[in-house]
Amino acid sequence: MNVVPPALARLIADLNRLPGVGRKTATRFALHLLRRPAAEAQALARDLHDLHETIRLCSNCFAFSETDPCAICADAKRDSSLICVVEEAADLMAIEKTGTFKGHYHILHGVLSPMDGIGPEEIKINALIDRIDRQQVAEVLIATSSTVPGEATAAYLVDCLRKKDVKITRLACGIPMGMDIKYADELTLSRAIEARKRY
Amino acid sequence: MNVVPPALARLIADLNRLPGVGRKTATRFALHLLRRPAAEAQALARDLHDLHETIRLCSNCFAFSETDPCAICADAKRDSSLICVVEEAADLMAIEKTGTFKGHYHILHGVLSPMDGIGPEEIKINALIDRIDRQQVAEVLIATSSTVPGEATAAYLVDCLRKKDVKITRLACGIPMGMDIKYADELTLSRAIEARKRY
Repeated sequence: MNVVPPALARLIADLNRLPGVGRKTATRFALHLLRRPAAEAQALARDLHDLHETIRLCSNCFAFSETDPCAICADAKRDSSLICVVEEAADLMAIEKTGTFKGHYHILHGVLSPMDGIGPEEIKINALIDRIDRQQVAEVLIATSSTVPGEATAAYLVDCLRKKDVKITRLACGIPMGMDIKYADELTLSRAIEARKRY
Repeated sequence: MNVVPPALARLIADLNRLPGVGRKTATRFALHLLRRPAAEAQALARDLHDLHETIRLCSNCFAFSETDPCAICADAKRDSSLICVVEEAADLMAIEKTGTFKGHYHILHGVLSPMDGIGPEEIKINALIDRIDRQQVAEVLIATSSTVPGEATAAYLVDCLRKKDVKITRLACGIPMGMDIKYADELTLSRAIEARKRY
């Protein structure tokens, strides 16, 4: 006998689609929402409903935004001659949180991954090249992840941008802050040695 | 500068209220929903909207159900003289999944917890006693958790039910299936020794 009411089963199936959420966690979320006041589930429903209707991509940098251009692209105080290229919106958020970067962004919305059929056309690489031609860009900081597809994407970008009259930089690679040297992996450690800095 | 669009920030705050979901996970869920087709977020929104409108408590056993009485209480093939008392809906689901129990349920919707101000009036204990008087109940199987509040609630129930002409049972305590004896905690092991069974 199916003891889960259909409306609850549907919600569990929806929640089960969230990244890293299995059936047990989805059930836990759904029962939590059922125990809490109805207003809480309603608020979540309303905000989900508004999500795609309110948020679009900035036509310049492809960040998620309610306005076009986005707040960063529209901000005259930020340096439009410096563009930081990231894989996805979450990377932009992480970099913004540091407060160290005062330039513009460019969100690729993916990385090159030929095995998954993701080539340069599938991510926002052409738009970046157009932007460099259009906007007066002095430096492109490539901030893709230091994973295999992230590095491949960075290499491809360097190839594309080499013809342009623009400085190309990459996030520094090395020992993360607070890390014990003896636990660092060999590749990170050898990169850190190669890139050693003088006092 | 706040780089998270307000509509996205609201959704992150909502998701952040789910049990065990921190800010980072909530952001991950929200960005996932933003990347996926709008229909997915809309389906989740619709099912959340329907949740409290469609699901109510069975007036007999207090299970979540779209009908009253619920499917279990309405099922003539199940033994209404045997009532299994559980803390919450998820416990009922876990027991039903075993397929071993063919009686009715009674969901307390909580456990006694004087520190949190939860006394017998706050959980469905009176309703259980009424039910025993009303329905011809032969056995009450107490299936609260073997935690401190679960055991306290069980002890209180035994006290209440002792006056009634009803057999009171409790889930067996012992070594879980597949567990290595040397890793069992002392309390579980001593309970298992005390409750040893003869071949």
